[in-house]
Amino acid sequence: MIENNYYSQDIHGPYERIGIGDLELEEGGTIPDCTLAVATHGTLNAARDNAILIPTWYSGSSRIMEQVYIGPGRALDPERYFIVLANQIGGGLSTSPHNTDGALGMAGFPKVRIGDDVRAQHRLLTAHFGIDTLALVVGGSMGAQQTYEWAVRYPDMVKRAAPIAGTARNTEHDFLFADTLIEAITTDPDFRSGRYLQSSDVSDGLRRHARLWTVMGWSPDFFRTGRHLAMGFESVQDFVERFMVAYFAPMDPNDLLCMAWKWQHADVGRHAGGDLKAALGRIRAKTFVMPISHDMFFPLADCRAEQAMIPGSEFRPIDSVDGHFGLFGYDPDYAAQIDAHLSELLAFDVT
Amino acid sequence: MIENNYYSQDIHGPYERIGIGDLELEEGGTIPDCTLAVATHGTLNAARDNAILIPTWYSGSSRIMEQVYIGPGRALDPERYFIVLANQIGGGLSTSPHNTDGALGMAGFPKVRIGDDVRAQHRLLTAHFGIDTLALVVGGSMGAQQTYEWAVRYPDMVKRAAPIAGTARNTEHDFLFADTLIEAITTDPDFRSGRYLQSSDVSDGLRRHARLWTVMGWSPDFFRTGRHLAMGFESVQDFVERFMVAYFAPMDPNDLLCMAWKWQHADVGRHAGGDLKAALGRIRAKTFVMPISHDMFFPLADCRAEQAMIPGSEFRPIDSVDGHFGLFGYDPDYAAQIDAHLSELLAFDVT
Repeated sequence: MIENNYYSQDIHGPYERIGIGDLELEEGGTIPDCTLAVATHGTLNAARDNAILIPTWYSGSSRIMEQVYIGPGRALDPERYFIVLANQIGGGLSTSPHNTDGALGMAGFPKVRIGDDVRAQHRLLTAHFGIDTLALVVGGSMGAQQTYEWAVRYPDMVKRAAPIAGTARNTEHDFLFADTLIEAITTDPDFRSGRYLQSSDVSDGLRRHARLWTVMGWSPDFFRTGRHLAMGFESVQDFVERFMVAYFAPMDPNDLLCMAWKWQHADVGRHAGGDLKAALGRIRAKTFVMPISHDMFFPLADCRAEQAMIPGSEFRPIDSVDGHFGLFGYDPDYAAQIDAHLSELLAFDVT
Repeated sequence: MIENNYYSQDIHGPYERIGIGDLELEEGGTIPDCTLAVATHGTLNAARDNAILIPTWYSGSSRIMEQVYIGPGRALDPERYFIVLANQIGGGLSTSPHNTDGALGMAGFPKVRIGDDVRAQHRLLTAHFGIDTLALVVGGSMGAQQTYEWAVRYPDMVKRAAPIAGTARNTEHDFLFADTLIEAITTDPDFRSGRYLQSSDVSDGLRRHARLWTVMGWSPDFFRTGRHLAMGFESVQDFVERFMVAYFAPMDPNDLLCMAWKWQHADVGRHAGGDLKAALGRIRAKTFVMPISHDMFFPLADCRAEQAMIPGSEFRPIDSVDGHFGLFGYDPDYAAQIDAHLSELLAFDVT
């Protein structure tokens, strides 16, 4: 356990930390008294059928989902829906390496899979909130991985699904990219095999990690069209330092590594003995597959190939030169595209 | 200076090392007795107008250009043309950090720009071979950077130009990518600021460098369509180890860094006070701009934007899921596409 004010209520709240009991893990081991950081908006209706679940992405928290994706008058409207934002395990707000005591803390934290998050969230929704139907599960990147896992694992519960900029089975290319991120951190001598005294000790590794993200997270077109300058930065180096390096600098390295491993091993195919098509064939949710046009590691073609395996699904790409980080919502045309697709999806009669 | 058998005649030859005298450098300083490693094929005709120049790319030598690009009956036919393959400075065969003695050797090697290579090659062609017209300059990646530099700097001498998978001015995105490669090497503690005792001391850094290349050098579609398996590897990890890591492992780190810096700073715009369009407007060569469809760091759009600035030029993309490393020629459809475009270009009447 280590102090890290970055994950505080001041920065990411308000959120509630809700215990869901001991969580047995797919890869073995147990997280005792697993706690999920949860934010909610809106009210569950009498029929208990207006709930929307939003999981989180790598390095992100519920806060950015609130800021970029939900709001009155938007598709994800808290005046119509009861919106549950559940922070992923290892993300820093829920149970994570940096906030866990004893032998399971820090580098001793067990391997967690997307399926563990989804089972934890299922327990949260059913036991804590008394919800047994979800009008929609929507998430980006690792949030999309969780969305796919939800739709395959609980096909009767999930009525609609919108995986944005992510895949159901992580690709080999994506695995290799995540490996480079992991190496950027773990090869910093001050990482000390995960036994650093404070996260800032690993600043060199975090910095390299941020620079790798700069190359793969946006796109060549983003830089060519000067989007970084349009965002208010003076130069590409200014953008790298004040946006990318600054964004990742306060995060906990072991937390990031927990998420990176989870991201790499996402695969709904394991529900059908490795048969991805059979697993995706179980989905009964109306599904809009929503990749982002210029995404360099969850590219259109990879997402399209999976969409073709999902019964009744539709391919709804989002156009943005911001690439994967279109997710951040800086592209002024992003939110309107997201809302148009999600509004149409939510209007879809699934009875 | 350091022994490195990788750059030997056995592996890259036969080549001749030709002195072109002292080379004053754009960034300051001089390479005394600069030597270029040169391979030639074919015979210079009586009119001295059938010469083709082929510069080399990052980490590559004249050998792969001979193996993949030239041959009897092909567009680059040594029975019709006098083909000069000139290895770039810093590439390991010509004057390079690892083979330079004294204060200028190893980490003391001066900064070299694309323009320095092109002036050195110009001296080689005019003074050594007595050539003052080039039927074609063609190269890939950093070879494309040299091709653009040739066409802008010596517009009367270059009759045709074919930059493959490269740009005339390096982009910000590409600069950041090259930075990650540089960091992969220089952050290895055994790099010792370039004062390692043998290149294998830096194996960790070279390994990380190879893994970054795996992510950016090919493409997501390459892995999704199983091209690495079609190339005979058992798995993606087998491909990473036996192809990518093995390819870069014997190379000299300081040589790679010399090339990486040069690659980052390529910019023909400096011939026109920073005005790229004005510089490219000077080109009188018939130019085919030939990016590769799935290239992740010299993408179609970046190359297209430059092509639009070159008088009389044509945009001739090559289709290959192999991405940038399509250059290696493993895609069975690659050579035929290259030959079709180059044959048409060479048939173009430039008188």
